[in-house]
Amino acid sequence: MRKITVAAIVLASTALVAVAQQPKPEDEIKLRRAAYALTGYNFASLGAMAQEKKPYNKDEAIRNAEFVALLSTVPKGFFSEASQKGETKAKPDLWANKADFDKKMERMNAETAKLPQVARTGDFAALKKQVADTGATCKACHDDYRAK
Amino acid sequence: MRKITVAAIVLASTALVAVAQQPKPEDEIKLRRAAYALTGYNFASLGAMAQEKKPYNKDEAIRNAEFVALLSTVPKGFFSEASQKGETKAKPDLWANKADFDKKMERMNAETAKLPQVARTGDFAALKKQVADTGATCKACHDDYRAK
Repeated sequence: MRKITVAAIVLASTALVAVAQQPKPEDEIKLRRAAYALTGYNFASLGAMAQEKKPYNKDEAIRNAEFVALLSTVPKGFFSEASQKGETKAKPDLWANKADFDKKMERMNAETAKLPQVARTGDFAALKKQVADTGATCKACHDDYRAK
Repeated sequence: MRKITVAAIVLASTALVAVAQQPKPEDEIKLRRAAYALTGYNFASLGAMAQEKKPYNKDEAIRNAEFVALLSTVPKGFFSEASQKGETKAKPDLWANKADFDKKMERMNAETAKLPQVARTGDFAALKKQVADTGATCKACHDDYRAK
């Protein structure tokens, strides 16, 4: 094991060394979509608990909240001008109104950041409220900048 | 804002409420690939630092390490029998040797879990070693169960 260099292992295990430095537009799209998919999955679980469509489980809610808080910080780094074209649901309006988009993203991140602490209290009513407040900030951006 | 129900917001913001409960095979594939993409991106950054191909930055290394530790725990939940078919690089061998795959996954998770604490020490030599040890556990599984 020790004879294998770090370089060999990293290259073998991922083909993303170049991406780690300067992602290509198609990699930006891939990474932001990956982050949204996992954020959506975890937020949907919180939403289902909040709607009492699945049983409330404190530990699961904390884990979901931690994923949402961390992953929702990812996409903002992957919306370069060049990443408008490709397999994306992002509308051109997003880049035409980048300052507004950035502000909406910031508001969303401010709400997602609160989720883990609220989930950890075990206060279900507070969690419901925080899920609703967070969902509203997701929706604000989707309404304007995500294609149906 | 208060008049919008949680249900409406969650449904509007994601279409994944059903997924949160019982993912369909194609959603399992989507979610595991999303987790691998983001794990790979963050691990590649650590790898590039370890190889001195990009400057070592303690805060960035901690953030990368936290992403890898959290995201690398995701895929194991999304390898049902039904998810063999579809847009996946996972070989059929994976399901034929599920116990071995699970063991390799567990070993990988044991190493990724150590990354944040090592990154937080700021000890670059220790980080290099932990990146190599982690990469070897990624490679072990890719060699056997991921198509080229």
